[in-house]
Amino acid sequence: MKNFKEAKAILFDIDDTLFPSSRFSSLARKKAINAMIKAGMSATYANASAALLKIIKKHGSNSPHHFDFLAKKFKCKNKARCIAAGVHAYHCAKSSFHPFPGTKKTLSLLRKKYIICAASEGKALKQWDKLIRLRLEALFLQVFVSELRHGGKTPAFYKKISKKLKIPPKKIIMLGNSPQKDIRAAKAAGMITIHILHGKNKQKCGSNARISKISQLSRLL
Amino acid sequence: MKNFKEAKAILFDIDDTLFPSSRFSSLARKKAINAMIKAGMSATYANASAALLKIIKKHGSNSPHHFDFLAKKFKCKNKARCIAAGVHAYHCAKSSFHPFPGTKKTLSLLRKKYIICAASEGKALKQWDKLIRLRLEALFLQVFVSELRHGGKTPAFYKKISKKLKIPPKKIIMLGNSPQKDIRAAKAAGMITIHILHGKNKQKCGSNARISKISQLSRLL
Repeated sequence: MKNFKEAKAILFDIDDTLFPSSRFSSLARKKAINAMIKAGMSATYANASAALLKIIKKHGSNSPHHFDFLAKKFKCKNKARCIAAGVHAYHCAKSSFHPFPGTKKTLSLLRKKYIICAASEGKALKQWDKLIRLRLEALFLQVFVSELRHGGKTPAFYKKISKKLKIPPKKIIMLGNSPQKDIRAAKAAGMITIHILHGKNKQKCGSNARISKISQLSRLL
Repeated sequence: MKNFKEAKAILFDIDDTLFPSSRFSSLARKKAINAMIKAGMSATYANASAALLKIIKKHGSNSPHHFDFLAKKFKCKNKARCIAAGVHAYHCAKSSFHPFPGTKKTLSLLRKKYIICAASEGKALKQWDKLIRLRLEALFLQVFVSELRHGGKTPAFYKKISKKLKIPPKKIIMLGNSPQKDIRAAKAAGMITIHILHGKNKQKCGSNARISKISQLSRLL
């Protein structure tokens, strides 16, 4: 495709694009629940797991108090011990974060030719924490994070990036796994889009290309 | 000494008694500052270090926002990146926490004969986090933490522990490094006291015994 050749910059989504965030989150939560039960929380794994999902839904995935609410829900006798055990297990699991295979190599190659940035949604501090844990932070020229209270990833967010980089949208590629946030919104801003088929949403969504692995970028560009 | 032989329970202070907390905190802060400078904070190590000490003094050592204030003070252009780098480096350093030599072995031996508890001051969640990181949490029958807003380690705190354990104060040994909080306050509650000579405060303070290593307990008891 012709427009790929004219691209000057590539934006990468972070969660479930650079690393399997959903898989890691669910693993970390599982470890945390087991640690809390071991530390004295009176609950079966199934009950605690269902309760935690409800808590996350109610308070948002970025709340720092998930395990406090869980300890309260199951009336832990020693709340501090249970919460500390949960947080510790969660962080230990998080320290095993690693990127999808080939990610670091591909980014290292691409940055010789393109401006490489991250474009994600959530809390800036948390997104940076992920890039640092993944040891990818030095590869990005800039990291753009749209907080949810500012609307998340909208066409306006992508237009702002284009302005900041001083590169027209049509010369910017956005790569991500979310049909709505990564593909349709970036397309509406006039960008070239690549859908990476990680996670659930694999249906066609109008992207300029579809890949299943980040390493396939080298063949496309 | 006769009264040691009648003891039924031993209470252990945590910070600078079970592990070199001051040394680890200062190492972790050093690593955090260096990481923040590397991530783009415009400050010399000396300036940042002095500023951080002031921040800790002003907001208390338990504030979760030390690095936010530091990033603000030095007007970091990319605050989220600098703070995330600082927090990450701090946590990595913390994961190298380990107890003073012989601590685990001594506690394991003593718990065959005595009721072993921890008695500390600060945030319950943080103190539990330390015991979990030190892998000592399973050795204690109970962990008592007096939050600072409840007065910290006062004679009343020690009297409450004695009531909870249903053991008279004169049959409880308190071991710690702080002349005021661990020795004088426990003594005022009627407990037997052992001063462990870690850190700065090594002057005599009326304790029933003085040791320089936790392993020396085995000879005393």
